[in-house]
Amino acid sequence: MNKQNIQLDQDGGLRHFLTIEGLNRALLTDILDTAESFTSITEQTIKKVPLLRGKTIVNLFFEASTRTRTTFELAAKRLSADVLNIDASISAATKGETLLDTLNNLEAMHCDMFVIRHPNSGAAHFIAQHAAPHVSIINAGDGSHAHPTQAMLDMFTIRRHKGEFHNLCVAIVGDIMHSRVARSQIHALSTLGVKEIRAIAPRTLIPAEAETLGVHIYNDLREGLRDVDVVIMLRLQYERMRGASLPSEHEYYQLFGLTEDKLSLACPDVIIMHPGPINRGVEIESAVADGPRSVILQQVAHGTAVRMAIMSRAMRHKIVVAGGESS
Amino acid sequence: MNKQNIQLDQDGGLRHFLTIEGLNRALLTDILDTAESFTSITEQTIKKVPLLRGKTIVNLFFEASTRTRTTFELAAKRLSADVLNIDASISAATKGETLLDTLNNLEAMHCDMFVIRHPNSGAAHFIAQHAAPHVSIINAGDGSHAHPTQAMLDMFTIRRHKGEFHNLCVAIVGDIMHSRVARSQIHALSTLGVKEIRAIAPRTLIPAEAETLGVHIYNDLREGLRDVDVVIMLRLQYERMRGASLPSEHEYYQLFGLTEDKLSLACPDVIIMHPGPINRGVEIESAVADGPRSVILQQVAHGTAVRMAIMSRAMRHKIVVAGGESS
Amino acid sequence: MNKQNIQLDQDGGLRHFLTIEGLNRALLTDILDTAESFTSITEQTIKKVPLLRGKTIVNLFFEASTRTRTTFELAAKRLSADVLNIDASISAATKGETLLDTLNNLEAMHCDMFVIRHPNSGAAHFIAQHAAPHVSIINAGDGSHAHPTQAMLDMFTIRRHKGEFHNLCVAIVGDIMHSRVARSQIHALSTLGVKEIRAIAPRTLIPAEAETLGVHIYNDLREGLRDVDVVIMLRLQYERMRGASLPSEHEYYQLFGLTEDKLSLACPDVIIMHPGPINRGVEIESAVADGPRSVILQQVAHGTAVRMAIMSRAMRHKIVVAGGESS
Repeated sequence: MNKQNIQLDQDGGLRHFLTIEGLNRALLTDILDTAESFTSITEQTIKKVPLLRGKTIVNLFFEASTRTRTTFELAAKRLSADVLNIDASISAATKGETLLDTLNNLEAMHCDMFVIRHPNSGAAHFIAQHAAPHVSIINAGDGSHAHPTQAMLDMFTIRRHKGEFHNLCVAIVGDIMHSRVARSQIHALSTLGVKEIRAIAPRTLIPAEAETLGVHIYNDLREGLRDVDVVIMLRLQYERMRGASLPSEHEYYQLFGLTEDKLSLACPDVIIMHPGPINRGVEIESAVADGPRSVILQQVAHGTAVRMAIMSRAMRHKIVVAGGESS
Repeated sequence: MNKQNIQLDQDGGLRHFLTIEGLNRALLTDILDTAESFTSITEQTIKKVPLLRGKTIVNLFFEASTRTRTTFELAAKRLSADVLNIDASISAATKGETLLDTLNNLEAMHCDMFVIRHPNSGAAHFIAQHAAPHVSIINAGDGSHAHPTQAMLDMFTIRRHKGEFHNLCVAIVGDIMHSRVARSQIHALSTLGVKEIRAIAPRTLIPAEAETLGVHIYNDLREGLRDVDVVIMLRLQYERMRGASLPSEHEYYQLFGLTEDKLSLACPDVIIMHPGPINRGVEIESAVADGPRSVILQQVAHGTAVRMAIMSRAMRHKIVVAGGESS
Repeated sequence: MNKQNIQLDQDGGLRHFLTIEGLNRALLTDILDTAESFTSITEQTIKKVPLLRGKTIVNLFFEASTRTRTTFELAAKRLSADVLNIDASISAATKGETLLDTLNNLEAMHCDMFVIRHPNSGAAHFIAQHAAPHVSIINAGDGSHAHPTQAMLDMFTIRRHKGEFHNLCVAIVGDIMHSRVARSQIHALSTLGVKEIRAIAPRTLIPAEAETLGVHIYNDLREGLRDVDVVIMLRLQYERMRGASLPSEHEYYQLFGLTEDKLSLACPDVIIMHPGPINRGVEIESAVADGPRSVILQQVAHGTAVRMAIMSRAMRHKIVVAGGESS
């Protein structure tokens, strides 16, 4: 089974959401447009729509992540779904059985969607390959492979500020090697047709495949920031950098920490993004993170609407509207 | 107070669900019939009924069990109840106070039902004996005593496949000594009137009281499987076998592991059951667990409907229908 | 920013609920009156009102407390709000980022209310000072500073039994020094105009500021109990008494444990209160805790209604009634 098709149903619509790879521009744009309609809901007095009432969504986390779990739980509840949180990293029962037995059991309980977080790259794909026909899988981060819902909320934030993608020069700064977010962002930016993608990092934190993805590589932050429209900072994740030769935290900040000073080389209307949580003074200066060009909290705000969009699109065949079934 | 009556209200209806002992065939059949009506709900697009709207169900677990907690949470949510999950095994507050003080506090908050999981046999009975009149107790497993909701979902699965109970020969295989599930199954099968119940296990894993329950004992799997209609495998639970002399895991599998080969001695339309989670290659061969005669995942699927049935029957006096109170 | 005003909006209504200090008698009475109306709801068959439907309430606990979390979760669900439980004491994500970044992220997700439990005194105030305009903060206990919702449910219980406050003599007994509950109770009793407040404790467990609050200090329990109308026992919290010189548990019970014998000195219709969980035989005799003058479980019962009142008053500008916005 190939990665390109498993995410789509026979009509070419979204069934699973595992990776940006293999999803075309029309489908990504449809998600962004749907998220646009949910944005107003999250700002209303009653922040709820009955779209997924009576559906069961399971947050199945094989790696603890309160933050990510919370964003999916919130999105699911605002769609009126029932949510089960399963911390599979501490569950004795799930440890004794195989991953597929755990999956099959939850499927048998007529759950409709699994939001999977797993430390191993490819785990969400593996689960999707074995999922029952009535179940949709959402990848909430698998190892260093992909974190596609984060990439989509980033795209949504960029579109809200810049309107169109085709004229943009976007720089991704930091530990691209170990970042599942960066990998998903590069695929999304490329599919949505930005003019230029730059990867800015020390040589040791640039993955070998970066050039094949059409990314321009910079090992100097000042050089790479010149005339960019969007800067996406990555979180420095020490826990993922086993064996990578890295300068000291202080030295890293000197060279690759984003400061007001370095940022002056970018376009005047540049926006600054970061997937959070921020390491202040490590990869980004507080003045930048909290400054007028930062859209970091807007990313968080858009995260709910974008996840609502992805969940409801993947379950669109199960949604009942006004007495009938909708597509 | 005797165990036979505490579960029933003055009209002979279900109030608590603690053990199969003392419940008659009519009452067990009523639960199975009610579950039948819920089965269709769990397969609908909107898997929810408003029966327990505005009721509060507390999962009060003195022993961690993600799997069991999940099944009860799902059943409660599909009945539209509000659910509180309390992990009393790690709660500092509950450790400092007595079990009855914990109970009394939750009762004072006008909770309607407690689903109790406890490592000590008899804990659910103890709590039911001291429960306020407005509260129902469901036993979700107490030590090696009982696990009656599991037994009821097993009975439901058998009835779905075999129709009637009176002609059946049912074999329970494995660690019967330490199994709360086996104890509940034997009582349920006996009450529902099966022709023959067999217990198949090494001598050291057969409890002394087995014969008094009218169970036929076999220490040889091949002999015991001859002409049976239903095989219920038990999970080998090393953690419960303190002091029991047990052969090695390999030797156990040779003698008591269920394989296609051994199964050929049973009736051609035999069904294979297991409460999960499965230890593949310890008590059961994968070819059997995943084969056409296995109904293991159907057991899981029926678990939601059966737990919905038990919960709603125990709270039937509190259910409002179309403006009035229903029984 | 002063502590007196941050809790109120421009109309003098409740916005945050951080401490009793600075709230006037009219506002406290309004909360008690609102709670009165919710009491009947928690006793109905369907214990739910749609007041906060579509609102998101986050239990953000930087200190584990299953009991307190449960009471707020229950109150929120009975108001039909969506509830997110975040155990910030174990969340790796929140540890890496600053408290304000955690807060800002949850605000960006359009959460409406944060219920904060924190080991540091002043944490809830700090968060309220930096909260976005659309967010209300409820203090669920901050260090040894305040626990105002507990104090309000105590006031509610007193009013239910005694009617008026102005004739009452109320004794608070135990570790007043380290008790956030005692501090909040003293402010509430004083604001509601009781005749006399007594603090009864060993010298080492009386805080220096007690006398400035108009409290009469007793170091002898028998003396202090004479003719009191209400006795509020405190929980002896060894974990909070770093460095305080305390007699042995046995010696403490001899001197300051509440017994039937000592209680005979109080008014005949005295009521006994305790915030729970009780240390039986340490600060209170079981005969007293479970006796006819104990209203301890009624406190728990009223806790839900009082927390529903505080939550709904703090969000009253966001409540939609019959198609419009209500105040």
